[in-house]
Amino acid sequence: MSTVNPDDIAKDQLTAFVERIERLEEEKKGISDDIKEVYAEAKGNGFDVKVLRKVISLRKQDADERAEQEAILDLYLQALGMPTA
Amino acid sequence: MSTVNPDDIAKDQLTAFVERIERLEEEKKGISDDIKEVYAEAKGNGFDVKVLRKVISLRKQDADERAEQEAILDLYLQALGMPTA
Amino acid sequence: MSTVNPDDIAKDQLTAFVERIERLEEEKKGISDDIKEVYAEAKGNGFDVKVLRKVISLRKQDADERAEQEAILDLYLQALGMPTA
Amino acid sequence: MSTVNPDDIAKDQLTAFVERIERLEEEKKGISDDIKEVYAEAKGNGFDVKVLRKVISLRKQDADERAEQEAILDLYLQALGMPTA
Repeated sequence: MSTVNPDDIAKDQLTAFVERIERLEEEKKGISDDIKEVYAEAKGNGFDVKVLRKVISLRKQDADERAEQEAILDLYLQALGMPTA
Repeated sequence: MSTVNPDDIAKDQLTAFVERIERLEEEKKGISDDIKEVYAEAKGNGFDVKVLRKVISLRKQDADERAEQEAILDLYLQALGMPTA
Repeated sequence: MSTVNPDDIAKDQLTAFVERIERLEEEKKGISDDIKEVYAEAKGNGFDVKVLRKVISLRKQDADERAEQEAILDLYLQALGMPTA
Repeated sequence: MSTVNPDDIAKDQLTAFVERIERLEEEKKGISDDIKEVYAEAKGNGFDVKVLRKVISLRKQDADERAEQEAILDLYLQALGMPTA
């Protein structure tokens, strides 16, 4: 629509798209706040939030892929004289 | 909880927190996908997605603040010999 | 190197890669700090940092592309009854 | 400088700040490219780039903090019936 004529702008259509996106972004923001609240609640119950985030991310990872990456990591850490995981 | 004893981990509580976070992240992912779909639909209808995103972000900005920033921007662009907005 | 044997790890080679990356990351961090300092200096001289960042990003943009995007943006803003740039 | 008068803009000063920032950003971009090259070279030599990045980030972490985080992580993974690191 780069060389569009002002009158060709479908105002209602544009307005509808903008409002749909804004409603969804509002909803998404609400859920982000909910996630923050759960982490805050977990922290309040003595859980380590940083580790809890790590658990959540590990649970998304394919188990075999995770095992392989951790095996290679241990190899590299040993080669560098660092403590393994 | 840094020097926690393994048995003290409230397994059910930890599991509940993890599942709540995962459910919310799933929901959030779904809404992100919905937003992408709306932008794709707008693109399909001839709208410029990059500009549409700019409109959405401008609508979040306080009108006075936006006017002031744009006025200063024009000043700087003029000072640098660049075309103003 | 997924099924690598521990002894095959070229320790010196790995160490060399790690140290090269760390040196470069150190250098990069130094330059990031320098950039922050210039913005702080500009702020101290009365310049608006947010607008200055905008100027820097606009100067990276192709002039024609910028003009086109701003023209479309004005169209959309007008269609939505918002003040144009 | 929000209600600044156009003539008060220190053009030379603004130009100097802009050029200093652009030069530094150019330098930073160059180093980022160098880092990418080292990772590519490491990959070409059979190293796993994802694990190499993990090693680099672990080396930035305080050893005690890392040990503690990994201990807690193992506790949580055990509590959730997942394989530990």
